[in-house]
Amino acid sequence: MSNEILVSTPGVGEYKITVENGILNKAGKLTKPLTTAKKVAVVTDSNVAPLYLKRAIDSYRTAGFEVYSFSFTAGEASKTFETVKNILEFFCLIHLTRKDIAVALGGGVVGDMVGFASAIYLRGIDFVQLPTTLLSQVDSSVGGKTGCDLPAGKNLCGAFHNPIAVFIDPETLETLPEMYLKDGYSEAIKSGAILVPELFELFEKGEAMKNLNEVILQSVSMKSGVVQRDFTEKGERMFLNFGHTIGHAIERYENFSGLTHGQAVAVGMSVITKASEKAGLTKAGTYDRIVKCLKAHNLPTEVDFDLCRVIEFCKSDKKSQSDSLNLVILEDIGKAKIFPLSFSKLEAFILKGVL
Amino acid sequence: MSNEILVSTPGVGEYKITVENGILNKAGKLTKPLTTAKKVAVVTDSNVAPLYLKRAIDSYRTAGFEVYSFSFTAGEASKTFETVKNILEFFCLIHLTRKDIAVALGGGVVGDMVGFASAIYLRGIDFVQLPTTLLSQVDSSVGGKTGCDLPAGKNLCGAFHNPIAVFIDPETLETLPEMYLKDGYSEAIKSGAILVPELFELFEKGEAMKNLNEVILQSVSMKSGVVQRDFTEKGERMFLNFGHTIGHAIERYENFSGLTHGQAVAVGMSVITKASEKAGLTKAGTYDRIVKCLKAHNLPTEVDFDLCRVIEFCKSDKKSQSDSLNLVILEDIGKAKIFPLSFSKLEAFILKGVL
Repeated sequence: MSNEILVSTPGVGEYKITVENGILNKAGKLTKPLTTAKKVAVVTDSNVAPLYLKRAIDSYRTAGFEVYSFSFTAGEASKTFETVKNILEFFCLIHLTRKDIAVALGGGVVGDMVGFASAIYLRGIDFVQLPTTLLSQVDSSVGGKTGCDLPAGKNLCGAFHNPIAVFIDPETLETLPEMYLKDGYSEAIKSGAILVPELFELFEKGEAMKNLNEVILQSVSMKSGVVQRDFTEKGERMFLNFGHTIGHAIERYENFSGLTHGQAVAVGMSVITKASEKAGLTKAGTYDRIVKCLKAHNLPTEVDFDLCRVIEFCKSDKKSQSDSLNLVILEDIGKAKIFPLSFSKLEAFILKGVL
Repeated sequence: MSNEILVSTPGVGEYKITVENGILNKAGKLTKPLTTAKKVAVVTDSNVAPLYLKRAIDSYRTAGFEVYSFSFTAGEASKTFETVKNILEFFCLIHLTRKDIAVALGGGVVGDMVGFASAIYLRGIDFVQLPTTLLSQVDSSVGGKTGCDLPAGKNLCGAFHNPIAVFIDPETLETLPEMYLKDGYSEAIKSGAILVPELFELFEKGEAMKNLNEVILQSVSMKSGVVQRDFTEKGERMFLNFGHTIGHAIERYENFSGLTHGQAVAVGMSVITKASEKAGLTKAGTYDRIVKCLKAHNLPTEVDFDLCRVIEFCKSDKKSQSDSLNLVILEDIGKAKIFPLSFSKLEAFILKGVL
């Protein structure tokens, strides 16, 4: 398997994702042929700055760019309109022009924020992603989704804006706390479950942790294929929401201070598969495989509170269509499908597998 | 001439601009076939609200929409990231979904802000423009540019986002103060000067004020043609900046508290044409025609301060390329061209017509 994946979006353009140990040191050199930028604005957060900011700056400086950097407080709480404004004002301060570029060094929040700021600064400048968490490496570096939260909820504003390149350095995962690593496992297991049986089996066999480069490549490759075929999220791209309807509702129910995103999605995958298997929509034994695999990676498969409350939160999800919602279920490992269900039937389905 | 203009952008889509007296009352009915929205969020400003908000709301309510409205303080000072956030929070408050629409009722600031908020809310929802000033009718309803100012400067952030329809009611101009009307004249005269000699002649003959519907249609038609052929502003679309390089610099020099945008552009057109005619790039007599026409519409053609200072401000314009800038000059009325000039030669050219 090559270590490069071409992500191409009809009518929008294309970019390459490269997965390589130590690539952080070469990011500047690899970016050079892709831009006429003089200035590079590296944006990161307070967790990543002490670990990798110097290396990123050196890499771009050595490649001949004029480099400036900005760091904001790490964490979901920073994913606000105010932080976007701070990033924009940093761009203004260093007189970043339309030809210059931004670099997102960090996890999902950094990628979302820098991508969004790049999408709207001067109505759009180029940016490069250097994802440093497993979750951002397997998930948020593909798809062009950028944005931030608003007081009323998560990801309520944003833009579709592709990076000009993504350089993934799996060595950055060596400093990643176990908790964040598991969040990445959860998304990668999901990727396998919906479309890539071999990836799921890699986790089932307990071989994923030793083969993170392959996990990243397979996840990214799957997602880029899906996004390419369905950029505006009308069909197949919805598969990526497997486990997310319930997962998001759990996060919101706990006011984002309970389970992490990856943990909540793990529970979401289990709950929905338990229901769909009971309802006869899913091959027998699939629920057991999902649960066993998640547990083996220290991911939760159920919550200790009443699911009825969570179901209420599903109804106010921004993706929900008026009276019904599109659930993603598995027919088998590696085979997802969309299953529209009216809200009135949601509770009986989730709790009892009744249709 | 039909009262409808189809604006179509390759790869982006198309929408219609309709110019018709009294169309404000029919906006809801005309919007209905274009959307599956249940809710409509009408956003306006404190100048327009007392004049036309009720009519807009009634129009949409009668057409069967659930209508909510929000008004912010009129004026350029409101064109901020904070106001965008307020609009987004209003959208959240009324639980506007991806299928619902926003309506921009007002002048350029309202259009820019609502367009921008619509571009980023849930990563993009549809919006309708009901421009109520001559400037917004002839200019900002075409081109998809939306955005707001940042403390460091004007229009520093935004997005390209087309409306699904623009309904122009020239009757709203009856309540427009003379000062704002002149701003619209200035842009329309510019439109004529760069590409539509008949439109310029309509102003020259003093017949424009009596034929505002035609002025609007001709301006919109010209701009939509240009934008269609050059959506990303690499070539012909730059013509639209005629008078704007100097104009913007004047506005910035006066810290946006001196000449209005239209007045500054009028001076810009005069100054640049004086220079280009002196340099032999423009047909003799063109400068006189421009000045006579602008003066006849009470627009200024010079400033009473040192132009050298203004030229300094040209150099920090966000559109400027490194060491040189692309000036737009006229070869003749109705015939613009791009004239690249290095910054080092700008002063001699502007002040003395020397190349």
